[in-house]
Amino acid sequence: MIGVVVRNIPRVETAIAERLARAGVSTVHEAMGRLGLMKPTIRPAWPGAQIAGSAVTVLGQPGDNWMIHVAVEQCRPGDVLVVGLTADSTDGMFGDLLATSLKARGVIGLVIDAGVRDVATLQEMGFPAWSRAISARGTVKATLGSVNIPVVCAGALVDPGDVVVADDDGVVVVPLADAARIADAADARLANETDKRRRLAAGELGLDLYKMREPLAKAGLRYVDSLAALKD
Amino acid sequence: MIGVVVRNIPRVETAIAERLARAGVSTVHEAMGRLGLMKPTIRPAWPGAQIAGSAVTVLGQPGDNWMIHVAVEQCRPGDVLVVGLTADSTDGMFGDLLATSLKARGVIGLVIDAGVRDVATLQEMGFPAWSRAISARGTVKATLGSVNIPVVCAGALVDPGDVVVADDDGVVVVPLADAARIADAADARLANETDKRRRLAAGELGLDLYKMREPLAKAGLRYVDSLAALKD
Amino acid sequence: MIGVVVRNIPRVETAIAERLARAGVSTVHEAMGRLGLMKPTIRPAWPGAQIAGSAVTVLGQPGDNWMIHVAVEQCRPGDVLVVGLTADSTDGMFGDLLATSLKARGVIGLVIDAGVRDVATLQEMGFPAWSRAISARGTVKATLGSVNIPVVCAGALVDPGDVVVADDDGVVVVPLADAARIADAADARLANETDKRRRLAAGELGLDLYKMREPLAKAGLRYVDSLAALKD
Amino acid sequence: MIGVVVRNIPRVETAIAERLARAGVSTVHEAMGRLGLMKPTIRPAWPGAQIAGSAVTVLGQPGDNWMIHVAVEQCRPGDVLVVGLTADSTDGMFGDLLATSLKARGVIGLVIDAGVRDVATLQEMGFPAWSRAISARGTVKATLGSVNIPVVCAGALVDPGDVVVADDDGVVVVPLADAARIADAADARLANETDKRRRLAAGELGLDLYKMREPLAKAGLRYVDSLAALKD
Amino acid sequence: MIGVVVRNIPRVETAIAERLARAGVSTVHEAMGRLGLMKPTIRPAWPGAQIAGSAVTVLGQPGDNWMIHVAVEQCRPGDVLVVGLTADSTDGMFGDLLATSLKARGVIGLVIDAGVRDVATLQEMGFPAWSRAISARGTVKATLGSVNIPVVCAGALVDPGDVVVADDDGVVVVPLADAARIADAADARLANETDKRRRLAAGELGLDLYKMREPLAKAGLRYVDSLAALKD
Amino acid sequence: MIGVVVRNIPRVETAIAERLARAGVSTVHEAMGRLGLMKPTIRPAWPGAQIAGSAVTVLGQPGDNWMIHVAVEQCRPGDVLVVGLTADSTDGMFGDLLATSLKARGVIGLVIDAGVRDVATLQEMGFPAWSRAISARGTVKATLGSVNIPVVCAGALVDPGDVVVADDDGVVVVPLADAARIADAADARLANETDKRRRLAAGELGLDLYKMREPLAKAGLRYVDSLAALKD
Repeated sequence: MIGVVVRNIPRVETAIAERLARAGVSTVHEAMGRLGLMKPTIRPAWPGAQIAGSAVTVLGQPGDNWMIHVAVEQCRPGDVLVVGLTADSTDGMFGDLLATSLKARGVIGLVIDAGVRDVATLQEMGFPAWSRAISARGTVKATLGSVNIPVVCAGALVDPGDVVVADDDGVVVVPLADAARIADAADARLANETDKRRRLAAGELGLDLYKMREPLAKAGLRYVDSLAALKD
Repeated sequence: MIGVVVRNIPRVETAIAERLARAGVSTVHEAMGRLGLMKPTIRPAWPGAQIAGSAVTVLGQPGDNWMIHVAVEQCRPGDVLVVGLTADSTDGMFGDLLATSLKARGVIGLVIDAGVRDVATLQEMGFPAWSRAISARGTVKATLGSVNIPVVCAGALVDPGDVVVADDDGVVVVPLADAARIADAADARLANETDKRRRLAAGELGLDLYKMREPLAKAGLRYVDSLAALKD
Repeated sequence: MIGVVVRNIPRVETAIAERLARAGVSTVHEAMGRLGLMKPTIRPAWPGAQIAGSAVTVLGQPGDNWMIHVAVEQCRPGDVLVVGLTADSTDGMFGDLLATSLKARGVIGLVIDAGVRDVATLQEMGFPAWSRAISARGTVKATLGSVNIPVVCAGALVDPGDVVVADDDGVVVVPLADAARIADAADARLANETDKRRRLAAGELGLDLYKMREPLAKAGLRYVDSLAALKD
Repeated sequence: MIGVVVRNIPRVETAIAERLARAGVSTVHEAMGRLGLMKPTIRPAWPGAQIAGSAVTVLGQPGDNWMIHVAVEQCRPGDVLVVGLTADSTDGMFGDLLATSLKARGVIGLVIDAGVRDVATLQEMGFPAWSRAISARGTVKATLGSVNIPVVCAGALVDPGDVVVADDDGVVVVPLADAARIADAADARLANETDKRRRLAAGELGLDLYKMREPLAKAGLRYVDSLAALKD
Repeated sequence: MIGVVVRNIPRVETAIAERLARAGVSTVHEAMGRLGLMKPTIRPAWPGAQIAGSAVTVLGQPGDNWMIHVAVEQCRPGDVLVVGLTADSTDGMFGDLLATSLKARGVIGLVIDAGVRDVATLQEMGFPAWSRAISARGTVKATLGSVNIPVVCAGALVDPGDVVVADDDGVVVVPLADAARIADAADARLANETDKRRRLAAGELGLDLYKMREPLAKAGLRYVDSLAALKD
Repeated sequence: MIGVVVRNIPRVETAIAERLARAGVSTVHEAMGRLGLMKPTIRPAWPGAQIAGSAVTVLGQPGDNWMIHVAVEQCRPGDVLVVGLTADSTDGMFGDLLATSLKARGVIGLVIDAGVRDVATLQEMGFPAWSRAISARGTVKATLGSVNIPVVCAGALVDPGDVVVADDDGVVVVPLADAARIADAADARLANETDKRRRLAAGELGLDLYKMREPLAKAGLRYVDSLAALKD
């Protein structure tokens, strides 16, 4: 579906987005049953940001950032712009001018399966971006894509309005319909992990904490005193 | 052409190099009509440096840094050492001793289509390096290459004396004959961008600022109210 | 050899490990005759750490971190956990809970030929990790591997008890039997480099310091005044 | 959505599938407006096959082929099995035994974003497979995935029942609802190309055939007699 | 260990090698408990060869084939030459002249974690080679490596005398001490697979043949009639 | 230099091109002193072709094949079309229609640092192509590049009129001014290799043929009877 802009998309409640942001990518990904993760080729342009917001999606053409300009108008405060491409590219389709424009509209971050540039300025501005490359390579404005249709970005399916969670560990996509449930599950994991962390820090072994000794023995794990013993 | 060292090369005026450094890689690359960029596989060993200088070029053999030692003698203050290889390698052909030697001669940075090492020390010294890898892998001194002949480095042709501009966005090469003209064009872009940035920050849309609405409509872009509407 | 845990491994003396850590990866790799280096695909999750310790080894299955839990029990203060896999993977097999557990046992770092996650927390905790990827991708606990058998990690053979040296330049493996000798050789290199660094900083050329002019001439290197001269 | 098998999916009419197969991947991809293509990392295990059929989809776990066994039961004659993974892997999740089983059910091919093995036997059997790798690496049967839910495979979204077209150029996915229209468009392109091919073979230039001279001139293309002329 | 040639190595019995060759890489790899496989980056230079023989090992330097010449003298009929490198390289370290020399000594194939060249001639000669690249890039003869010491090749540890099995699926390494046992296990698998293949070809499902229905149900797999049913 | 077509370029004599084609890539590359090779990422779309001809060069934009159409008009019998891009791409910029057009003009092959498609048809037509990918991904005709200016293709500098030699081993570029000399050197190598091949086939060792024993001993190579002997 090329050449279409969808004006109205659903959006996540701010409170839920904030809880997902606080939980972070790894916890949310686990809470989803280990789904929704973008490929680890997507990395933050600068470290330390941790966000979650509603996806405004762009299906872009490689080397062409026309549709990003189109998408800006569709963004609202709290949104995250997500750009998937019709073919692989590392071109620098996004820089400080587009970031300025998105920031003016309250957008909290960008995720793009291509390159970004002006990364030093992006960090100064405090505008976070996750991308597959950093590249100064400029782009044209010649071919249509679409805005707010379902896109594949770095191996993950993103529907417009899905909640995009991003931090130094990467990017995970939560279907909007599941967002409240996943936020609950993530919070439960966090609570649960606090206790585990305390016990592990005190020296308790995961082998005991997670009751692994029996299944390991059942699977056939055996202990020997030395490598030499193995060869006898 | 193997086994040759060219002693005299043209060099850019300091004032022009400084203007290109200030403009930065992305702006200079645009000012050149989107040419001259090295591949995004070339990344800074540490962030924050922004330089421009005349290229002293090395055609090196993979896993062999003999010719870098030869090239040091040909360098002058303000130069940038650029190393292309006859075959792909990530070996750490450059470390803190060579950086010490180059710094003593006033060289302001290194660009190499291979690996560098001692990166913590390079950062302490303030000597910037752009490379395709960080690797401790050591090298031999056994096979000749050349110094100050045209080389291909990370996909870009570099003639000795060309102006090499490098920052956190990557590396771009400006032919010496075009340097003054490109510096002017880059400065013009910067001036122009200041106004654009101010207007975008104030909430004006790129769609209006760049007058994109008409060409988009002509290309067939259509707006719909919802995804569901599309399927009707 | 799958399904085996070896309880007793030899370990390096603390004093030798400390000397190797201080020498750093590039120097130790040179002192070994340019051997023992892991591939440059292995990078630190956060910069600035510099360690050396005895390897507790894990042969793990991709996407499965069961054996890391098993290995924790075998670790002692000063150890480095080294994880090689039976097949390539970038999954995030290691995060802050495992780091908490290892830290509680005095382990000083992790090297893994797969992904790690919770990298912001790892840095806050001061627990260093070297990995081929950063990925939130979670893992299962379903298939046995082994602990403290010889493993291949990022192209390097690691025997349990070998000394693993890691810093911002990468990771190098020193066979335990050679550790004292290599520490001596590395210290000798460091001493030697101090003098070289001073002379190079004073402007002496490597060409003279390393007596390269004669072998270069013998290999046929010739100097010309200009590129044009070459074409005559 | 993990742990679900959907029993009933829509399927394309045989006649339409046959027309799409005959048109081939490049033509169908163009007829779709340059959409639907899997990444070029997906290559045929052996050359010469050209197929189109209804997608039975599998969401699999890396290194685990349990769900492929589950999917076999859901296949009918003319189907193509499409396997996307929850994380990147090159493991050989598919070999001659599974191919024998699929062939017995009339399945015409496999597309998998992982590895295949027994490739010599697959070719002897005439069972075509498209994959990202050839690898003998074996897999376990330990973790659930799903069958016949929407999956992302090599960057393309595949809904169960979509028409998968595959040949030596790669793999393209046609949404089932569009299949008839795309088959028509592809046939029209083929008819049109026959005439073009004849004219080009007779020496007519694409510049004239496609009427490119005017737009090229308008874009500023200029002809010069020699490189030297350019530098004057 | 650099600069050493070991003259005497153990070798596998011809009859065992022949059985392993006949079983092929995928079956042998399974018979070993899914160990010993080289990375799938190693591919045959031409298709159709299927071999097994005793490994004569080379630790080579990237871009330098001196030690391959040294190794030729250590080879006997039925051997396979295995070359691991001290650092990554794709250079064409092996071509038709070395193949001629190896063939004259009865060597049955080459496995190299680098490039090969003259591939058309290698196929005409019937000399099989497995490599990570095809490259004409020539090499020097300047730096020592070793012959017949343990080497890492494409992620697998190879001891001199280990049995190397290679075919279109890749390369697997069988420790010499295990060769007879693995040959038995592989033959047992082959016998077992013949029956399975017959039953699968007759339409029996793997689900039933491997008794997967119960464990799948226990793991929670559920069947639904349609995607729509899932969303209710 | 964008937007320029140079009409007149020098061309190599047919007899010299034929000699270079017959010598093949590996021999020509050696005859040039191991220079001029494109990266091994460039592979033939189908095996068995072996060509040499004058380069008509294209500087193209990624995802845009407009300039290839422009270049066709500049081609003459015996030419090879060489396409370098301003940024990395694997898009299928070339297919059977362009091949038909080139063939009608007597062009003998294509080298492109991007993708090609219709590969089965290219093979049927007997039109050889070397590319970095096979991809059906279609392209636009929107942005100017240039024809017959110097380009970088897969890491090699190609001047218009240079002789491009290509076969199953890859692609090498011979500067036109050196073509006759390189053809002589290549022929001399071939003559020399015939004798070597005969002697090696008769069982003579490269160690003796190339007189390597003395330099190896001087470099310190030592022979031991067994691995065990090494550890004493």
